[in-house]
Amino acid sequence: MKIGDAEHDARCAALAEHLRSRDLTGAVLFDNSYVLYYVGFAFIQTERPAALVVNATGERGMFVPRLEREHAQANALVQHVADYPEYPSERHPMEALARLLEEMGVRDPIGSDVDGYPWVLGYRGPTLTELTGTTPERITGFVEDQMAIKSEAEIALIGESAKWGNLAHMLLQRYTRVGATETEVSRRASTEATLAMLDAIGPIYRGQSMFFQDGAGAGYRGQIGRNAAIPHALANNIVFHQGDILVTGASAPVWGYNSELERTMVIGEPSSQQRELFEHMVALQDTAFEAIKPGARCSDVDRAVRAYYDEHALWDYWKHHVGHAIGIRYHEGPFLDIGDNTEIAPGMVFTVEPGLYAAGLGGFRHSDTVAVTDDGIDFLTYYPRDLESLTIPV
Amino acid sequence: MKIGDAEHDARCAALAEHLRSRDLTGAVLFDNSYVLYYVGFAFIQTERPAALVVNATGERGMFVPRLEREHAQANALVQHVADYPEYPSERHPMEALARLLEEMGVRDPIGSDVDGYPWVLGYRGPTLTELTGTTPERITGFVEDQMAIKSEAEIALIGESAKWGNLAHMLLQRYTRVGATETEVSRRASTEATLAMLDAIGPIYRGQSMFFQDGAGAGYRGQIGRNAAIPHALANNIVFHQGDILVTGASAPVWGYNSELERTMVIGEPSSQQRELFEHMVALQDTAFEAIKPGARCSDVDRAVRAYYDEHALWDYWKHHVGHAIGIRYHEGPFLDIGDNTEIAPGMVFTVEPGLYAAGLGGFRHSDTVAVTDDGIDFLTYYPRDLESLTIPV
Repeated sequence: MKIGDAEHDARCAALAEHLRSRDLTGAVLFDNSYVLYYVGFAFIQTERPAALVVNATGERGMFVPRLEREHAQANALVQHVADYPEYPSERHPMEALARLLEEMGVRDPIGSDVDGYPWVLGYRGPTLTELTGTTPERITGFVEDQMAIKSEAEIALIGESAKWGNLAHMLLQRYTRVGATETEVSRRASTEATLAMLDAIGPIYRGQSMFFQDGAGAGYRGQIGRNAAIPHALANNIVFHQGDILVTGASAPVWGYNSELERTMVIGEPSSQQRELFEHMVALQDTAFEAIKPGARCSDVDRAVRAYYDEHALWDYWKHHVGHAIGIRYHEGPFLDIGDNTEIAPGMVFTVEPGLYAAGLGGFRHSDTVAVTDDGIDFLTYYPRDLESLTIPV
Repeated sequence: MKIGDAEHDARCAALAEHLRSRDLTGAVLFDNSYVLYYVGFAFIQTERPAALVVNATGERGMFVPRLEREHAQANALVQHVADYPEYPSERHPMEALARLLEEMGVRDPIGSDVDGYPWVLGYRGPTLTELTGTTPERITGFVEDQMAIKSEAEIALIGESAKWGNLAHMLLQRYTRVGATETEVSRRASTEATLAMLDAIGPIYRGQSMFFQDGAGAGYRGQIGRNAAIPHALANNIVFHQGDILVTGASAPVWGYNSELERTMVIGEPSSQQRELFEHMVALQDTAFEAIKPGARCSDVDRAVRAYYDEHALWDYWKHHVGHAIGIRYHEGPFLDIGDNTEIAPGMVFTVEPGLYAAGLGGFRHSDTVAVTDDGIDFLTYYPRDLESLTIPV
């Protein structure tokens, strides 16, 4: 199921062509999602720096610590692997990167995503400007635009993610009951879904996520009852009560790709106020679905949804834009936001998740993941959206 | 149990004093671990930028997206909260940061940890240099040095983390059996330890981790059997077999602080080769424990351990240095590494984890978390270290 070598090669070829068009001799990419995208190598950024080097002829090299060398050799689609013994060590690791650049003919002018490895987890080191004597050209815009258009294989992986997120969410809903706690329910649902996924896909499964542990997961992120009014509230092992509004989230990383499924559920009969906000939320999401089509701009979608907030006097309950792209990152650009004028194109994959947040009453948000087609959208998530299906019996 | 306001105030006062000593009018900190350290506010870095501003008089302000405003007002120990509606929005969020800097009298010259919010998850925006017209002075060294010396309250939190990591590890070992899979065992152990921890500490518990989900966890990170020779192998739902060497990991985030417990276990009677490498690994760790004392340098510890590798001809099995500091980050500086000449001081907390990796045989590594005292070390982790205790019956 994973992305094949030919697709990785084509991605790198497009990058090399961009480098040539900018008269750059090569590029250094530090962001681990970019590295996964171009050469299929998954790693977590730590104090031990790592980077991908691509030169203008399309040759690739990985720069890694000694303890990642075999891992990089086996998994990264590269012609060169340069390593260094350890960080900080007596000689700075960046000397090995400088040698790799030399070896691959990457010298002034060069491109990069950021001017030097980020100072995370205690790492300190020179910028690329300091290391090479030349300030790199930021090529992030090209990379982000390339990643924004997904291939069929990528959309299939996001769909695979959605399937296991759906299972986790189904179990989450099934186990949610008055008196249970969010932690026991979400852990049980996530574990059962994960074990089923691992047995179904088999030992070839790789999560390769920089964000989530391997496996399927569903939970509440603390958006329970009155806390549900805070969009990104922190979990707190809350006990479920009748009348709680719940905002869920479910996903599963598969070979680096993610989907997003979120639902608003209610425990027991909803109040008329809750019902009203729920129905407005569904209508907001429908408005967005209709507005997403090739040729429209991302801002048009947010604008269409904002017109609904206007028309129904819902601005007191607004807290965020309609959604974002998704793929190797669980959030990525472009954004369904009034400030993003990117033209929507086939192959883009978005989450669609306008929300309503009422202090003391709860938060109301569904999120679905959709792929843009030639004339509209395909749903990659497919969990029921209606209030009746999402009411937990008491 | 969490860090109190007085301690946060004292941390900020020390930072403000540093700013004055450098003739800086203030500083902008983007790293979320720094923000948690100074004002107790936990958040995940997304495409919606956030930052802490501290001015030279010690006043603090948080810059956050609209949907984090209430969260920041309730939890961040700051006098100002500046928000922006959304990212990207029609006006760039950084305009709101510029206004906050103005309001707090932070202008040329300023300090920062990085020149602008990092371009993560699709975020794009100006550097601080572009925003303010002045290139910030990097103050990361001061911040890292301050964070390296832990208070009694911080060491108590790391010890609390170690307690729940110990429980998770105890269950992990108990449930590990021939024929079981790593995923079912680690999920079961982690869930049971988490539920016990949440019930024991009660609803005041906050994980506040940027790295781990709330709760206690123990697992294998794929370091099973022959794969155990790769230090940071990826998990793969492996079935346990007799003769497997297992390298574990356990921790629990508590109010932002982490500990690290790792053990080498063997399923069934170890081979003589396995026994030999295990005993060398324990001796390497003992060597490190003895070398850690105030006044010694971090490099001295690595050097003492390297002498043991020399003496016993173990270099073929070496892959990494002795350890690293730990606290709000699961890895942080200083490093027990030949290239780090930082003087060891009371209050520093280190992981001690020299390893031996033999292809085809397995990896051998214990990791313990220790706090430096006036004359040596205190153990914060306390799980059995001997081979007999770590042998899984068959």
